[in-house]
Amino acid sequence: MTAGLTTAQLTEQHRPTLDQALEAIRTRAYWSPHPEHPKAYGGADASGRESLSPAEGQAAFDELRGRRFELDQPGADGWTATETSPYGIELGVEYPHPDIEVLLPAMRAGMPAWRDAGPEARAMVCLEILARISARSHEFAHTVMHTSGQAYMMAFQAGGPHAQDRGLEAVAYAFAEQTRTPAAAEWTKPQGKRDPLRLRKTFTAVPRGIALVIGCNTFPTWNGYPGLFASLATGNAVLVKPHPRAVLPLALTVRVAREVLREAGFDPNLVALAAEQQDEGLAKVLAVRPEIRVIDYTGSTAFGDWLETHARQAQVFTEKAGVNTVVIDSTDDYQGMLDNLAFSLSLYCGQMCTTPQNLLIPRDGIATDAGPKSYDEVVADLAAAVERLLGDDARASALLGAIVNPGVKERLEAAPGLGATALASRPVPHPDFPDATVRTPVIVKADGARKFWEAGDAEAPYLSECFGPVSFAVAMDSTADAVDLLRRTIRDKGAMTVGAYTTSADAERLVEEACLEECAQLSLNLTGGIYVNQTAAFSDFHGSGGNPSANATLCDGAFVTSRFRMVEVRRPL
Amino acid sequence: MTAGLTTAQLTEQHRPTLDQALEAIRTRAYWSPHPEHPKAYGGADASGRESLSPAEGQAAFDELRGRRFELDQPGADGWTATETSPYGIELGVEYPHPDIEVLLPAMRAGMPAWRDAGPEARAMVCLEILARISARSHEFAHTVMHTSGQAYMMAFQAGGPHAQDRGLEAVAYAFAEQTRTPAAAEWTKPQGKRDPLRLRKTFTAVPRGIALVIGCNTFPTWNGYPGLFASLATGNAVLVKPHPRAVLPLALTVRVAREVLREAGFDPNLVALAAEQQDEGLAKVLAVRPEIRVIDYTGSTAFGDWLETHARQAQVFTEKAGVNTVVIDSTDDYQGMLDNLAFSLSLYCGQMCTTPQNLLIPRDGIATDAGPKSYDEVVADLAAAVERLLGDDARASALLGAIVNPGVKERLEAAPGLGATALASRPVPHPDFPDATVRTPVIVKADGARKFWEAGDAEAPYLSECFGPVSFAVAMDSTADAVDLLRRTIRDKGAMTVGAYTTSADAERLVEEACLEECAQLSLNLTGGIYVNQTAAFSDFHGSGGNPSANATLCDGAFVTSRFRMVEVRRPL
Repeated sequence: MTAGLTTAQLTEQHRPTLDQALEAIRTRAYWSPHPEHPKAYGGADASGRESLSPAEGQAAFDELRGRRFELDQPGADGWTATETSPYGIELGVEYPHPDIEVLLPAMRAGMPAWRDAGPEARAMVCLEILARISARSHEFAHTVMHTSGQAYMMAFQAGGPHAQDRGLEAVAYAFAEQTRTPAAAEWTKPQGKRDPLRLRKTFTAVPRGIALVIGCNTFPTWNGYPGLFASLATGNAVLVKPHPRAVLPLALTVRVAREVLREAGFDPNLVALAAEQQDEGLAKVLAVRPEIRVIDYTGSTAFGDWLETHARQAQVFTEKAGVNTVVIDSTDDYQGMLDNLAFSLSLYCGQMCTTPQNLLIPRDGIATDAGPKSYDEVVADLAAAVERLLGDDARASALLGAIVNPGVKERLEAAPGLGATALASRPVPHPDFPDATVRTPVIVKADGARKFWEAGDAEAPYLSECFGPVSFAVAMDSTADAVDLLRRTIRDKGAMTVGAYTTSADAERLVEEACLEECAQLSLNLTGGIYVNQTAAFSDFHGSGGNPSANATLCDGAFVTSRFRMVEVRRPL
Repeated sequence: MTAGLTTAQLTEQHRPTLDQALEAIRTRAYWSPHPEHPKAYGGADASGRESLSPAEGQAAFDELRGRRFELDQPGADGWTATETSPYGIELGVEYPHPDIEVLLPAMRAGMPAWRDAGPEARAMVCLEILARISARSHEFAHTVMHTSGQAYMMAFQAGGPHAQDRGLEAVAYAFAEQTRTPAAAEWTKPQGKRDPLRLRKTFTAVPRGIALVIGCNTFPTWNGYPGLFASLATGNAVLVKPHPRAVLPLALTVRVAREVLREAGFDPNLVALAAEQQDEGLAKVLAVRPEIRVIDYTGSTAFGDWLETHARQAQVFTEKAGVNTVVIDSTDDYQGMLDNLAFSLSLYCGQMCTTPQNLLIPRDGIATDAGPKSYDEVVADLAAAVERLLGDDARASALLGAIVNPGVKERLEAAPGLGATALASRPVPHPDFPDATVRTPVIVKADGARKFWEAGDAEAPYLSECFGPVSFAVAMDSTADAVDLLRRTIRDKGAMTVGAYTTSADAERLVEEACLEECAQLSLNLTGGIYVNQTAAFSDFHGSGGNPSANATLCDGAFVTSRFRMVEVRRPL
């Protein structure tokens, strides 16, 4: 597609998808237009759109390496290269470094036309961007893998179709909220025997300004797309400031977005990249610029709190750190529970914001379908389940991926100092990338007696986030105590996820009430192929926005409603 | 109705009204369930609900005066009386003063049951509260009149049915946003030849905590109800801190709300009053309490900015001050324009946040259906229109109401020092209340040469808000200059309203583009019975939320979406 894209063409192609997305967020039933099987890609689909096969994706990625990544955006004052693959290969990609005094004004120029296009045309352009990204999912998978350290299959699924789903979901919410008010209305107020009062009113969704997306290292596309597409779909220009270790997936995204915008007759500068120099701190500079009116951020609590405090001119959406808990009270599927938890602890070396950290287990043990199990037995059986899951090196590598940065490795290596080690970490040789740092998770035993956690962090290492493959098996005096610790942890530290296993209606009620009152998302008795650390777009909320781990959720009305305002013009009719 | 109210009774009675409100906010057509004609009240309506006649309303108001206003809320540590009627009558009402260490915990106790009731039951209770308030509109009118200084008819309409409309509108938005996610869903994800993954999910709208409503002096109910009802309908408890000069209308509201909550089986402490001592500064104390998670505020820019900066634990919705502009370029109904503006400047002594302040008129005059008019002619003709409108003292009193507080009077008296007086203010004797301070508005001439307003406030008094019956007739070098000044004023000072008169498509486009880019609500060429300073619930947005005069609008999705969060619980199916 090199010829201009008309709105009619885009609408014909994408409006049915938007309608399905709108239906999905209403019913919360399973739905996705983005296949998650790698073999679904390659050749042309029913609509004639070509996608890259696995081999073509690999080739396209190789083409990107070792050269400058050209973006024809205004205001470049040099080049920057800051990425290192966690798998040890040389990326060698250089990106234009922005002169923001030139770039920001250029980004504003196209906003009136983008605003005037209206919510549907904007949604259609966003869906075309997503469709082109989808077609290149295998190429994107390599870029995500070699910046985040995710294993290929996860980089493909989470960085490809699942990220695209989250982007599309944001577009659907943005469309729904902008169109809940009609574009125009006639208003006739009766006046008894006199003529009625009559007005014609028009309503226009207007953008806030330039939106800033501050990307993260671990999920550059999955965590980046919701904010990017929510802001773009509501009429804002979007400046993408990637994490310096994970530029390529978002640079490629920006390139595709600019290409589609230009073809559809809009200013490509509505989307631009702000790749920074090492240690430049560009996010801090951009975040307080008056032109920046919306910020989406995923990362540390410290910088998230800084943004919420200092970027007062902007609407700030943050996903920060939390301490995720699983309450283990009882189960009627002991092995299923252990296997499910083992997977959750292992996936991507525990480097997900949703990975459980604290496993709260009654000191006196639990009732199970395999008979009563003591605290020590549960911990030992869980350790064995992890070892069994990761026993084969090739399979372990494909599940664990690589350690994303030296900080995670340091925390992992320091973990045995935090308590008795129930499961030690081991290095796993990667079959394809000998320089990758692959490690199995560690489980540390801890005492959950009330006096320890009521005394504060120093006595209870499990009260602080230990991001990476470190979890704590915390011996609790009772399930009621476990729920109290859960409440305290959510309230003080936040939680992206909570899990619980119980066959007791009373215990279930206690945990559920704690999650409702402290505002955290709860998964109960998961066994089999669904894990506490995974959520599905269009159905599951990612985070709640109501505890300290995040001030927003993916995705709800609140995620989009303050990205635009409605301006009314009224005239006598 | 003294027996318990069942949900079924409430739903049967109020669900049709809610559905009509939902339809109205979708179409923006004219609608209201609250009659604005005073004679519509008294006796029983079709549903058998009794309302107070004008005489009964007067009697009920007289009953309230000169005594303690009993509220059975916990944590009262004394009594306070801070009100003075702008009409000079003695109110003498004492309110319980709260011990917030007792009151705040008591308010939280009922929240889980209120949450569990769900969005529809909460909406029905809110509608019952509004219906009982509506039935007492004549009583409320007196309370609004004798605290705000509004004339009786305005106090009745704006403080009664129009305020109730805005409250209902907020309930409708809250209901729509909470129910866009279903209460429960089944999720089935195909797994090729394997069994599908299946989950049952429940979704619960959970409140943020206690919401604080900080009332204002001029529109205690109209500006108070949207936040109160939006927060209550989304499951929060609501603490109402009235302006010390306008307690009674909100105290009565709280009493009705508590009565309905109790009858419907909920904890009446979900709504409570926090009447303060004179100069106590209670809002500042409450606003930063950790229990307070939502704040609605109408008042000065200084305190609104303070809240936005310091109440970081809360979602803060503010309506502050602005400088409202009318651009006068040309008209095909010169007399209609003058009469319309004269009314807008006079209504409630210009003490509305929506009253125009700056009238921007080309120095070389304007084209009209009555021939070309010079700047001086336009100003003189407008002054004459105001004098004609207010020529009869009784009619003038009924339109002007009374000056609400000494600050407004001081500004009015200082106005002649700001420039040449085009229209002088005169005192109007009130036929019923000899001690009322009633004044006609003043119009001051000013020079709008670019050098003055580009130089800053000192040279151009019209760049600052002068709240009250003071407006500036600003001589501009051109309409284009007027639009530039309009833009600058909105951007720097904010605007709740913008008006414009023009017969030129080019000028109209310029003004409209300025309002879209600077985010302000625009009324074009209003003549006849619709005024720039009035908005209708369910159709018009009050403020935009996108310029410095307010960070929220009444009412849109953004006004409700962050008052609650959605908590999901998922279980294997």
